[in-house]
Amino acid sequence: MKFILTGVPGAGKSTVCNRLLERTSDVSVVNYGDMIFEDAKKLYPSLIQVREDVRKLPRDEYKNIQVEAARKISLIKGNVVIDTHMSVKTPYGFYPGLIPETLHIIQPDGIILLEFNPRDVIARREKDRLAGKRVTRDSESEEEILLHQQVNRMYAISYSAINQCYVKIIDLTWPQQYDFQHTDYAVGKIIEMLNFKL
Amino acid sequence: MKFILTGVPGAGKSTVCNRLLERTSDVSVVNYGDMIFEDAKKLYPSLIQVREDVRKLPRDEYKNIQVEAARKISLIKGNVVIDTHMSVKTPYGFYPGLIPETLHIIQPDGIILLEFNPRDVIARREKDRLAGKRVTRDSESEEEILLHQQVNRMYAISYSAINQCYVKIIDLTWPQQYDFQHTDYAVGKIIEMLNFKL
Amino acid sequence: MKFILTGVPGAGKSTVCNRLLERTSDVSVVNYGDMIFEDAKKLYPSLIQVREDVRKLPRDEYKNIQVEAARKISLIKGNVVIDTHMSVKTPYGFYPGLIPETLHIIQPDGIILLEFNPRDVIARREKDRLAGKRVTRDSESEEEILLHQQVNRMYAISYSAINQCYVKIIDLTWPQQYDFQHTDYAVGKIIEMLNFKL
Repeated sequence: MKFILTGVPGAGKSTVCNRLLERTSDVSVVNYGDMIFEDAKKLYPSLIQVREDVRKLPRDEYKNIQVEAARKISLIKGNVVIDTHMSVKTPYGFYPGLIPETLHIIQPDGIILLEFNPRDVIARREKDRLAGKRVTRDSESEEEILLHQQVNRMYAISYSAINQCYVKIIDLTWPQQYDFQHTDYAVGKIIEMLNFKL
Repeated sequence: MKFILTGVPGAGKSTVCNRLLERTSDVSVVNYGDMIFEDAKKLYPSLIQVREDVRKLPRDEYKNIQVEAARKISLIKGNVVIDTHMSVKTPYGFYPGLIPETLHIIQPDGIILLEFNPRDVIARREKDRLAGKRVTRDSESEEEILLHQQVNRMYAISYSAINQCYVKIIDLTWPQQYDFQHTDYAVGKIIEMLNFKL
Repeated sequence: MKFILTGVPGAGKSTVCNRLLERTSDVSVVNYGDMIFEDAKKLYPSLIQVREDVRKLPRDEYKNIQVEAARKISLIKGNVVIDTHMSVKTPYGFYPGLIPETLHIIQPDGIILLEFNPRDVIARREKDRLAGKRVTRDSESEEEILLHQQVNRMYAISYSAINQCYVKIIDLTWPQQYDFQHTDYAVGKIIEMLNFKL
């Protein structure tokens, strides 16, 4: 099975990926944004310094790099979880993380949306900031985080309509009883999906 | 005119189709899921026993069967109402009922969404269950039914964006004054749409 | 940059376009609906009298006209703002203003959604009506206007998923301190976006 895994920044998606790799060896996890950034940096070293720079590329160049990364993912055998963003929030508005061409190449079985309580997202981001991580990230209100999650849902459904695949919403808006309970729950659900046979 | 008619399971879509056929002879009603299931069963008798099994087929086989059913529908002359699901709820998440290829073949004039009060849906499903119908159906909360309706709306709009057609929301969330008032109202609206000329 | 600018009818989109042209000469503003209507009237003078008539055309003819208008827009050099509707509300339901083919030709950098407080929209429409403008427009409830805005958001995201571009929501739901404050704010944001370099 190939699943695209998404969630708003700073909510705990990478933690879910790391825990997933601890819990099972039967899956490859790839970070789509990293793959695109690495390729873009190699091809346009003068233009591309940080991840956001990739959107500076001429549309066709950027598309080629996305397609190339998708092709690499399509060659991975066995279960794959593709860590990516449904959409990125920028000063121009929301920007989609996938295109019909890359979907067609990756042929994901499904898109998984991790949906969080905005208050938890804010708390986790603040913890990151205090730990000196991602200190340049703009702070967002609960309303803005909620909007981003709604927008991501719509992108997921659009992609699924374009390239028939499942859309799984993993609801993590309930209060945790212990640290990383959301992580454990999400990892459990993802493993269930990787093993599920119709 | 060709309309795709959708609504969450157990809310009364089939009743609407039956009543529509009683009220007018100027329309064909086809059940897209049934057509796909029948074809799949004929082609893969050992694999396909129940409707859900069709999603076990390799992606390309399943696509071929969907395309073949769409082709049959495209050959029907006159008014056609296609009874189907925008999305099906499964353990993997929501799964879309249509793909760009089948939309392109069917060329629907519009997609009709029957939207219900979740409480009414629960009551109708309970009535079914007590009558011994669809007893294996999982029970759902009001929130889950509401989410499914919202997800279906997004699928409808995505399909309409892909293959320019109308999206008509028939609101049936108001309280009925008598049994089957929602059915009568929906049938009236559908007949209006079949007869409407711009 | 090429941006598609949208907002529900009667909310102030044209006013935004006019003020934008007063504030900067570095942009062309085109009205997509007008372009399509003019072309359709020339080609089918007996059939097309008012704008709504364009949807009476056979699907292929209508598509050709949309594509031709998109091609004209694609030839305009420099910044372009395309004034259009994400969707039009009709007796058949919502009808999308764009198709994948025209998006592919126009290659917009982004879609801008002007989102208003439904109460403001109703007040502005009433002002129009009292001034004898657009007197045939159907009156709508706050709920209906809200739904239309939500539907437009979903169309924008679907289009953006189909043809990778930004979706910018300009929130104008806050109360104005003076007349045309929303207009000034929206124009400021659009100019920012026209000048923005990643």
